[in-house]
Amino acid sequence: MTTLFAALILAAVIPPKWDEVAKGVWRGRIGAHDSPTLTEAAEAVPRSASIKAKSQVPFDLKQVKMDVASEYARVELPLAKGEKIFGLGLQMKGSDRRGGVYHLQVDHYAEGHDRLHAPTPFYVSSRGYAVFFNTTRPINVYVGVGNRTDRNDAPARDRNTDPKWDAQPDSGHVEASVQGPGIEVLVFEGPTAMDAVRRYVMYCGGGAMPPQWALGFWHRTPSLATAKQVEDEAGEFDRRGFPLDVIGLEPGWQSTSYPGTMEWDPGRFPNPDKFLKGQSAMGVHVNLWENPYVKPGSKLAEALQPGFGSHTVWLGLVPDINLPRVAKAERDFHAAEHLDKGVSGYKIDEVDGFDNWLWPDHATFPSGLSGIRMRQIYGVLWQRELTRLFEERNERTFGLVRGSNGAATRFPFAIYSDTYDHRQYVTALTSSSLAGVLWCAEIRSASTDEEWVRRMQSACLSPIAQLNAWDSGKKPWSYPAVEKEVKEAMLLRESLVPYLYTTFWQYASEGTPPVRPMCLVDGGEETDQYLLGDDLLVAPMFVGETSRKVRLPAGKWYDYQTGKYVGSQQTVEISPKLAEIPLFVRGGRAIPTFAGATRAQGEAYLPRCYGDGPWAGQIYEDDGKSVAYRSGAYGFFDLTSGADKVSQKHLAGSRRELARKLLPPLIVGKA
Amino acid sequence: MTTLFAALILAAVIPPKWDEVAKGVWRGRIGAHDSPTLTEAAEAVPRSASIKAKSQVPFDLKQVKMDVASEYARVELPLAKGEKIFGLGLQMKGSDRRGGVYHLQVDHYAEGHDRLHAPTPFYVSSRGYAVFFNTTRPINVYVGVGNRTDRNDAPARDRNTDPKWDAQPDSGHVEASVQGPGIEVLVFEGPTAMDAVRRYVMYCGGGAMPPQWALGFWHRTPSLATAKQVEDEAGEFDRRGFPLDVIGLEPGWQSTSYPGTMEWDPGRFPNPDKFLKGQSAMGVHVNLWENPYVKPGSKLAEALQPGFGSHTVWLGLVPDINLPRVAKAERDFHAAEHLDKGVSGYKIDEVDGFDNWLWPDHATFPSGLSGIRMRQIYGVLWQRELTRLFEERNERTFGLVRGSNGAATRFPFAIYSDTYDHRQYVTALTSSSLAGVLWCAEIRSASTDEEWVRRMQSACLSPIAQLNAWDSGKKPWSYPAVEKEVKEAMLLRESLVPYLYTTFWQYASEGTPPVRPMCLVDGGEETDQYLLGDDLLVAPMFVGETSRKVRLPAGKWYDYQTGKYVGSQQTVEISPKLAEIPLFVRGGRAIPTFAGATRAQGEAYLPRCYGDGPWAGQIYEDDGKSVAYRSGAYGFFDLTSGADKVSQKHLAGSRRELARKLLPPLIVGKA
Repeated sequence: MTTLFAALILAAVIPPKWDEVAKGVWRGRIGAHDSPTLTEAAEAVPRSASIKAKSQVPFDLKQVKMDVASEYARVELPLAKGEKIFGLGLQMKGSDRRGGVYHLQVDHYAEGHDRLHAPTPFYVSSRGYAVFFNTTRPINVYVGVGNRTDRNDAPARDRNTDPKWDAQPDSGHVEASVQGPGIEVLVFEGPTAMDAVRRYVMYCGGGAMPPQWALGFWHRTPSLATAKQVEDEAGEFDRRGFPLDVIGLEPGWQSTSYPGTMEWDPGRFPNPDKFLKGQSAMGVHVNLWENPYVKPGSKLAEALQPGFGSHTVWLGLVPDINLPRVAKAERDFHAAEHLDKGVSGYKIDEVDGFDNWLWPDHATFPSGLSGIRMRQIYGVLWQRELTRLFEERNERTFGLVRGSNGAATRFPFAIYSDTYDHRQYVTALTSSSLAGVLWCAEIRSASTDEEWVRRMQSACLSPIAQLNAWDSGKKPWSYPAVEKEVKEAMLLRESLVPYLYTTFWQYASEGTPPVRPMCLVDGGEETDQYLLGDDLLVAPMFVGETSRKVRLPAGKWYDYQTGKYVGSQQTVEISPKLAEIPLFVRGGRAIPTFAGATRAQGEAYLPRCYGDGPWAGQIYEDDGKSVAYRSGAYGFFDLTSGADKVSQKHLAGSRRELARKLLPPLIVGKA
Repeated sequence: MTTLFAALILAAVIPPKWDEVAKGVWRGRIGAHDSPTLTEAAEAVPRSASIKAKSQVPFDLKQVKMDVASEYARVELPLAKGEKIFGLGLQMKGSDRRGGVYHLQVDHYAEGHDRLHAPTPFYVSSRGYAVFFNTTRPINVYVGVGNRTDRNDAPARDRNTDPKWDAQPDSGHVEASVQGPGIEVLVFEGPTAMDAVRRYVMYCGGGAMPPQWALGFWHRTPSLATAKQVEDEAGEFDRRGFPLDVIGLEPGWQSTSYPGTMEWDPGRFPNPDKFLKGQSAMGVHVNLWENPYVKPGSKLAEALQPGFGSHTVWLGLVPDINLPRVAKAERDFHAAEHLDKGVSGYKIDEVDGFDNWLWPDHATFPSGLSGIRMRQIYGVLWQRELTRLFEERNERTFGLVRGSNGAATRFPFAIYSDTYDHRQYVTALTSSSLAGVLWCAEIRSASTDEEWVRRMQSACLSPIAQLNAWDSGKKPWSYPAVEKEVKEAMLLRESLVPYLYTTFWQYASEGTPPVRPMCLVDGGEETDQYLLGDDLLVAPMFVGETSRKVRLPAGKWYDYQTGKYVGSQQTVEISPKLAEIPLFVRGGRAIPTFAGATRAQGEAYLPRCYGDGPWAGQIYEDDGKSVAYRSGAYGFFDLTSGADKVSQKHLAGSRRELARKLLPPLIVGKA
């Protein structure tokens, strides 16, 4: 029964080959090179991580087996007893993946296991290394599952009588496979799990660096809002003293949507230039919703012709953005119609699924990619081209996208979802850093005042703080009884921008993700708490709960707002009031904040200090919006604070001193 | 980015070719022949259906498009407006599949859409034809989903403002695809949907013909029961007047299980010959549970060496039953250890999944099949070899299996599941006939007396009537308050054996499935009622419900037990008491039953007549156990009954007269 097909594949078998492709990054390949890989699709330019500690993978790479047989390319890696495996995409449940089987594929509604908004085939081990399967095919990953006849995994036991019989004897290995002619695997050294993640991020070109304004507050207006309605809504934020940095326009800004023209609707937005200038004058950036499917006969459709896939999505043409000609035509169109007028970025919707909406697996594209592989990277390709568009103009952008994958770390986009479970949202925050993506734990609506507050607090302590009211029409003050608590959370967010911006700099330059799941901090498996940057511990309160446990890792921890000492390396039970955000600070640290919380109040730096002094911190500064920082136009500083005065020490970059004023410290809590 | 892999596949594209491979059966092929197909795996020997009405497919076969591109082989078939599509495997929810996307794959826990115990890639249309994708690969089927740029499916509309905007514009086509070098599709003419199913079944070699004893009552004893305990349990059925035809032994009959030795345990079954002779003397047949995974070092493992796959299941070796040498060694072992001693059949467990238990997709087997394709047909191959084993001995068997697929219609096995939802079980009865398999709506346990009765009634009106107490230890009389009602359902089952046997003859010889979903009867979409054979309409009462609606199709319908007229071509609401089984009979018909309901009471035929006389019926008879019927050793008769006397008219077979006595009719209900 061996078919010609199988025979041809078998002929491609060659021995695995290992190369150190960056410091501490090992690449193994088997079979034919199966282009595009994920790093090729993302056009990743590898950088080495600046990790000084000596490291090596805790097993001999010769133990890794790779082969191509019966149409499948396979990788087998050893696992130690008790070793935990974290990652495998933007998961919304659980933490340790050992004992599971994952068929990783891009999809909508991402609770699951197999089909995820970002199914990055990457995992990190509790033993301090990481593995990335560099393939754009859907991949099967068997984590400790699948005993083999060519090994001696465990003795067979009798289920009839042996109480030690096990329904799933651990295999002591990871096996991963694709139906394809070959596969590439990358193994990242530690020595710590966090170091391995850093090596991965830097190998993909570093983490995203948003413009500073993008770290403020985002609000998306209802789908069919007119320019006038949007202007009124933005104005009301100002009048009521709520911060607003980005307004997002939903489908109604376009003359038609699903499929779209990507052109302004002349009725709802008769004068886009004026509208955009007005928002800009108020310090508000405008983000445009789009899905990439183009209305036949529209101006954009003509510009892209004949670069479409075999199938439509909502009867819209699907641009083969993998073709350089099509990508260029898209960039030109977006520049002329939007960026030249002042648009700051995009929300790219519906690039993930689900099956009934997207193209089928067998769809064809002019560039030669099958439908299934195009789906695996369509969100990545869009991020790549939009990032290129802004960077070519020496601008930074920050946007949203609903599908991504591996090697996309450098793209300034956060992923969002139509799912809306609060606990899953927080779990996704922790898993996003293991998938090399950013997650938007946005708020949309709420059934109760309490839910409105708790969700807003979560949104404000995530990489992008967004109220997405496209459908609900809500505003931050829509729940009058808790308007004060909601405003407090939003003002907290605004005040933290300098700290968050410094944290993102660590992501961009060192590969350390802004959200730090406990498994990267100290090997913990908690998915309901995380570090935000180096020094803040977030433990969100979930809807309907009045108390919760928080595990405090190494260091002394203080309440962010009151400065009260909470504990160290222990689990504490907390019962915060509705206005109280469970946010803790590492003792001995100076947190750089904005002194005035809204744009109108100026932007001097106020270091907030906790625990024993002198207090140490760091701060990063640049022009906040261009890519000049890449050529050294930034300043990175150590802060040291005594009780009355803070001193700055220049560490890196061409800016030798902070441009903004550094206020005397605020000693919030003492040991 | 075109890889060598893709290029090689593209080179295989050839124009589709259509052959009439049996009367009214059209085969289209594209690309390389991708062996084994499902019909090859099942070793199907096509027979033509005896359908006299003129027919043709209601579209030109030239409208069917097939191609191979970007590694996928694809078929595209037209759909008419309003056309409904039924089938796509052993589904447990819904009926019309139009508007859905299905990734058909063998799996455990079969509620779903995509992963099913029997993912037969077959559908039947309300327009009176059927389609079978003859592939052993997992297949994607897009039913009315996936608009294309090379067609004009519908006009694009504006979601912003057009109320007619549709989230999923129907594509007017089915597209199906596999990642592989080619595909074969079979199109079956009608003229009715039932005729199309008949053509499919006959093309696969006809339907299964169980031995007559297998249509009685089955009981499975607890896992670790000893011979003595089983003998006692079987004896108690007799003493209490409950029918018993088959006893099923669960894992404990083997000396070790999970993985198994397939050898008798010397402690629990010290003398298998004596045990089997004893059961046989009581008229009880013995069925053995097995899963195919062999304990390393066991006698069977030695006999099969070196015919195993790359991976183990519960650390048991996985026989490559696709290798003739391994299949022969398995048959020899089973003959010597079991059949020679008197075993009547098997229950083949765990051949479906789930992922964590079975081998991975990339597993390799000596015969060259990939793991994923082996999984698609492993249950089929086991059915094939066990059927061969019995037939070579001129014996019939009837068994159970947990995984199957297309082209397996001739194998005498029913599928069962660990899922246990009553409504899903009944839906599965209706979908099983669209998947070319038989379904076991077994009873295991119950939370209430009512549930026990209602589930028993369903079990007794399904292709195999089984109480599976491997885990629960239940007996039919375990709920004393309803012992009478339960016994009544079981005795009804026993009395219906002549009718059911005749019904199975229709399946074997004409291809008409014993369970007839309403979509095959008259295009109805009900999944909670069905015809059992030509003349019985079953409308099970579900747990917790006291009334239900039944839609009566063409014909006049009478209550089976009371003979009361119920209605015709109308929907009626019924509120049967617990003892009352919602079972209706077509008027004018004589239902052949056994006069005495238990084995001890003899087996004369009693025709039960309903509605206006004279009453007509049919009856099939043979030796009940050998395959001699295939050489003509049977009799098939028309019955015509007046008020007092029934006459028989020989229709086919070498038996010219019924061997059993034909009693005067029982006129149960008059018009």
